[in-house]
Amino acid sequence: MNGKMKALIKHHEGYGAQLQMVDIPAIKENEVLIKVKATSICGTDVHIYTWDQWSQSRVKPPYVFGHEFSGEVIEVGSKVTSVVLGDHVSAETHLVCGQCPQCLTGNAHICKETKIIGVDTNGCFAEYVALPASNLWKNPKDMPWDVASIQEPMGNAVHTVLSGDVAGKTVAIIGCGPIGIMAAGVAKAAGASQVIALDLNNYRLELAAAMGATTAINSGETDPLQKILELTNGNGVDVVCEMSGHPVAMDQGFKMVTNGGRVSILSLPVQPVQIDVTNDIVFKGITVKGITGRKMYETWQQVSSLLKSGQVNVEPMITHHLKLEEFEEGFELMIQGKCGKVVLNP
Amino acid sequence: MNGKMKALIKHHEGYGAQLQMVDIPAIKENEVLIKVKATSICGTDVHIYTWDQWSQSRVKPPYVFGHEFSGEVIEVGSKVTSVVLGDHVSAETHLVCGQCPQCLTGNAHICKETKIIGVDTNGCFAEYVALPASNLWKNPKDMPWDVASIQEPMGNAVHTVLSGDVAGKTVAIIGCGPIGIMAAGVAKAAGASQVIALDLNNYRLELAAAMGATTAINSGETDPLQKILELTNGNGVDVVCEMSGHPVAMDQGFKMVTNGGRVSILSLPVQPVQIDVTNDIVFKGITVKGITGRKMYETWQQVSSLLKSGQVNVEPMITHHLKLEEFEEGFELMIQGKCGKVVLNP
Amino acid sequence: MNGKMKALIKHHEGYGAQLQMVDIPAIKENEVLIKVKATSICGTDVHIYTWDQWSQSRVKPPYVFGHEFSGEVIEVGSKVTSVVLGDHVSAETHLVCGQCPQCLTGNAHICKETKIIGVDTNGCFAEYVALPASNLWKNPKDMPWDVASIQEPMGNAVHTVLSGDVAGKTVAIIGCGPIGIMAAGVAKAAGASQVIALDLNNYRLELAAAMGATTAINSGETDPLQKILELTNGNGVDVVCEMSGHPVAMDQGFKMVTNGGRVSILSLPVQPVQIDVTNDIVFKGITVKGITGRKMYETWQQVSSLLKSGQVNVEPMITHHLKLEEFEEGFELMIQGKCGKVVLNP
Amino acid sequence: MNGKMKALIKHHEGYGAQLQMVDIPAIKENEVLIKVKATSICGTDVHIYTWDQWSQSRVKPPYVFGHEFSGEVIEVGSKVTSVVLGDHVSAETHLVCGQCPQCLTGNAHICKETKIIGVDTNGCFAEYVALPASNLWKNPKDMPWDVASIQEPMGNAVHTVLSGDVAGKTVAIIGCGPIGIMAAGVAKAAGASQVIALDLNNYRLELAAAMGATTAINSGETDPLQKILELTNGNGVDVVCEMSGHPVAMDQGFKMVTNGGRVSILSLPVQPVQIDVTNDIVFKGITVKGITGRKMYETWQQVSSLLKSGQVNVEPMITHHLKLEEFEEGFELMIQGKCGKVVLNP
Repeated sequence: MNGKMKALIKHHEGYGAQLQMVDIPAIKENEVLIKVKATSICGTDVHIYTWDQWSQSRVKPPYVFGHEFSGEVIEVGSKVTSVVLGDHVSAETHLVCGQCPQCLTGNAHICKETKIIGVDTNGCFAEYVALPASNLWKNPKDMPWDVASIQEPMGNAVHTVLSGDVAGKTVAIIGCGPIGIMAAGVAKAAGASQVIALDLNNYRLELAAAMGATTAINSGETDPLQKILELTNGNGVDVVCEMSGHPVAMDQGFKMVTNGGRVSILSLPVQPVQIDVTNDIVFKGITVKGITGRKMYETWQQVSSLLKSGQVNVEPMITHHLKLEEFEEGFELMIQGKCGKVVLNP
Repeated sequence: MNGKMKALIKHHEGYGAQLQMVDIPAIKENEVLIKVKATSICGTDVHIYTWDQWSQSRVKPPYVFGHEFSGEVIEVGSKVTSVVLGDHVSAETHLVCGQCPQCLTGNAHICKETKIIGVDTNGCFAEYVALPASNLWKNPKDMPWDVASIQEPMGNAVHTVLSGDVAGKTVAIIGCGPIGIMAAGVAKAAGASQVIALDLNNYRLELAAAMGATTAINSGETDPLQKILELTNGNGVDVVCEMSGHPVAMDQGFKMVTNGGRVSILSLPVQPVQIDVTNDIVFKGITVKGITGRKMYETWQQVSSLLKSGQVNVEPMITHHLKLEEFEEGFELMIQGKCGKVVLNP
Repeated sequence: MNGKMKALIKHHEGYGAQLQMVDIPAIKENEVLIKVKATSICGTDVHIYTWDQWSQSRVKPPYVFGHEFSGEVIEVGSKVTSVVLGDHVSAETHLVCGQCPQCLTGNAHICKETKIIGVDTNGCFAEYVALPASNLWKNPKDMPWDVASIQEPMGNAVHTVLSGDVAGKTVAIIGCGPIGIMAAGVAKAAGASQVIALDLNNYRLELAAAMGATTAINSGETDPLQKILELTNGNGVDVVCEMSGHPVAMDQGFKMVTNGGRVSILSLPVQPVQIDVTNDIVFKGITVKGITGRKMYETWQQVSSLLKSGQVNVEPMITHHLKLEEFEEGFELMIQGKCGKVVLNP
Repeated sequence: MNGKMKALIKHHEGYGAQLQMVDIPAIKENEVLIKVKATSICGTDVHIYTWDQWSQSRVKPPYVFGHEFSGEVIEVGSKVTSVVLGDHVSAETHLVCGQCPQCLTGNAHICKETKIIGVDTNGCFAEYVALPASNLWKNPKDMPWDVASIQEPMGNAVHTVLSGDVAGKTVAIIGCGPIGIMAAGVAKAAGASQVIALDLNNYRLELAAAMGATTAINSGETDPLQKILELTNGNGVDVVCEMSGHPVAMDQGFKMVTNGGRVSILSLPVQPVQIDVTNDIVFKGITVKGITGRKMYETWQQVSSLLKSGQVNVEPMITHHLKLEEFEEGFELMIQGKCGKVVLNP
């Protein structure tokens, strides 16, 4: 399709981004052109927007960023058989090699050659996006566009929470950014007996409670370890989902988990972390899991099923709907933590 | 404690049972005397009551039967340290050897030397019951007696449903006796995207729906395989919990499960069953799990947590509360399938 | 590549096959042409050769059959990036859809749309074979051609044996066709404390012993259940790999497995099988696994690693090397069970 | 049994120990008196002997230390049914509460109330030891006493190596103390395609190679990360067993494991360890397992089976047999690392 489109461009090596008119991307034979209906802002987008250290080392402006979206297929490449015109789709954002030991054994999500849509390639903060058909996930046509757009980050939450059993178990969620908030909903839906959300931000703790957290602890106001012991008869929690990236919170996570428990870490602390391996990992006999991306595509099936069935309702945590043009307001909300999920409509 | 008590005695090798006054049992140094507050009728009790073929081969009247209960500790043996006077308790009904390969490797529930309370020893259809302390499970003091009394059969439901993943998956429950009805509640609480209950008894299908089944199918009125395919986009269900024991229903279970799925069997068909191993097990690459009893005591922790948290509410399926003296009415309801769980109060 | 090649053709709907000169196949852009160096005869090929009931319902002569091979890449399609000229390769024989729920969740080996090379498409009993690059597995250049050619069936053995733990466990292999013989070697290599091979054919039992079976039982001469109990202190075996397809042997398999054990079934019994579900599955609390094909490509990595490391040495069970022209002798050996693996060299 | 016996006493709060004559211990009704036939020196015993910081905080002299042994039952308490006079036994050294959440769910080895024989109670560096029957493990009568005495530390090796799959995988063993050396043998026996042993001590690296390591790397002489990449086609190892406790070696372990791999940690670093959580755990999607003790008693069954079957032969690494009176020489060998396992005969 020829023509121009609005797109949010990371235009320079510095703070911010610009809305520009650019060419609608051309598709290759194995690609699909999608009209973007809703796109949501990820913490990664905020890193790129604010041009932090990680962005400086990885991102190459100018390009279109953004990777969470839902949209409609409006053009399909000649070799594409998996989707047709009119399909509603979202996309897995990991572009993988398909040939390494990880890809060949069901672990494509940790392919060492991973490229990320909207980070390493043009993304979806635009009216249209061109993507390989093999990365698309078909959505039910009655799924709202905004809900569909946040399946990718919900996949992180699902991957983290369900990287072990939770039914009948006590689960702590450390860090209530949007993914942590969704993780509270997922843990509750999956049968956790307690879902304990921890953060310093009361606004977000309330969103976690709205999603299903049974207790919300402001770690700045209440001693989290003391409170966890009270809530668990002195035993500690069975499962910790670490989503804060903060070394003090992470240390608390290792302290609050019970012997034989699980600590699943999705966060990306910016520095190496001091861990009391002897007392907190070995003597406790715990399992620590590093969580990256979404299992391709087992996690997508779980997300889709939990949403379609109503087991998880994400609407309480989609707090803001803005036009793509209002991106500055959206990023500001994210930076200040005064939001759940922010959806932009191109 | 000396004295007499009311007890329901399987008094002869034939149909029925008698309420009699018998000695309150004396306890040994490792045992505990419990005042029974609520006791519920299991399908096994119905087999004993009606004196079916299995009972004839196993049970030795006269003795006190019954094994599901809750009560209060009123006397403790000299060596007992795990419970104290006044504790509220229920009991695991498998008395195991503790020394065989199964017991030594976390599989005591399938100990080859298992004796069952109320089947091989005196049980709890009585005012008092004496039991080894090591088989007791402590209940929270605010748990209602009737709810506490049905934890043992709920353990069967939990063990069956949670013998693999269910979050975000489609689950069929074949056979909606009381355990099947509870299994519907457990599957829903553990995040199943669909819980499909199947039976021929509409009364019990309604109870399954009340507990959380998203679809109830009367297999006598609707073709279950056809309906399951409709509900699952032609894929079949991910998990089958077989609780009917009927060969036709079991065969349907193997047909309705999708490739790579799981069939967990709790039921006890009275005859060998014809299974199309090639097409229904091998080509499908499924996993079949035989389920006996409750994991000791992982399952009890799960049951207790699901109840305390409110994730599962069993009250809709405790349909009848009777006095112990009204046992004939209770057994009649069970025989006719016109009940959920029947609780007797001594 | 133009020209003619020798190929073994299933030429008619009846017994046997013919060696014919046919066109070398042309390749598509995603395909590769391979010069076949070694090709081995599978039990499936024998079914096709003898034109049994299954073949009559599935196979459409005339075509080239055969699916186990090793060879050298001599031509690559324009879109192929995963292999290059000169690579040594074998192939996964399941051609899968890539889009169904099974394919999308790491279970491509049980894709419902599976086509099989040499059954549903032209195969490798020929000088050349054209195959999609995505199904090829690269072999080390120092792996002997005959060893490389039997990786596919060894994959069945590995998939079956390693579908659960075996280190320190007792494993029975029921049915010592070539895959059963390899399974004995795999179980021994993976740390089984006992590997008990069962068959009626002493020649093949000797091959199983040569591969690592610690006991070989001729079930026609010795009561297998009695013998297994003697060997396991009355406990039964931890793992049964059922590879016979015979209903009596399968029933013995369910009887010989201990409580909590595993029965992995690779065989394809021609009729439904009577199983004592109550006593042999439910009360025992066992796990039954249906095994199809090879996990794509986890199983291939395991096979390749076990061979390269020398943990499994398959040479004792490659008993015959023949020219492609000597196919009649090869099939005769297979029909009579007087061989381990028969390799044909085109 | 009345009388006196030789015993190695940790007699004061300082370096060393003394051989003294003390009373043979009296047994309680649930205990057993064992004549010690062989007892081996653990690294923990060396800590106590040298009176390091950990010992100072935990151990209360005077008492009999030592916890690894084999012996013969010569007296049984009145309530003991699990062993009889003349049985050959070793012992699990964790004395657990049996009532906490961990004990009740198959995780007794990480009971929070664990006491350790020979650390918190009198041990086995003596002619006789009195122990609860419930902690005894029966040995086959044809198992050599010295082999039987080292099952407890071999259990640590088995628990670590087999805390995930190893068949067909590459395994690195970091730290070749006696347990590391045995771990090499266990990994090889369980089908690892490569077993790479790392240490700074060539004597012990040779023992690891004798036990089955396919490559031995002296990390002081060769860059271990570089070498591992060479050995694994640039992929890294699938499994790391960390048994050194050294922060540099542990960091190398996290660097050498491949994406999706496993790091099982048995060692007890004396200080908190800096871990690059983001790059080495999260992005890699690895699993870290803390390993304490032996699963009770699954690990004992595995150890016993691997020894009885000959899958693991520990004799090459039992390098020294001394009399109990020669304990000073034994401890000196351990301190200097000039030994495999040192066995003392009382």
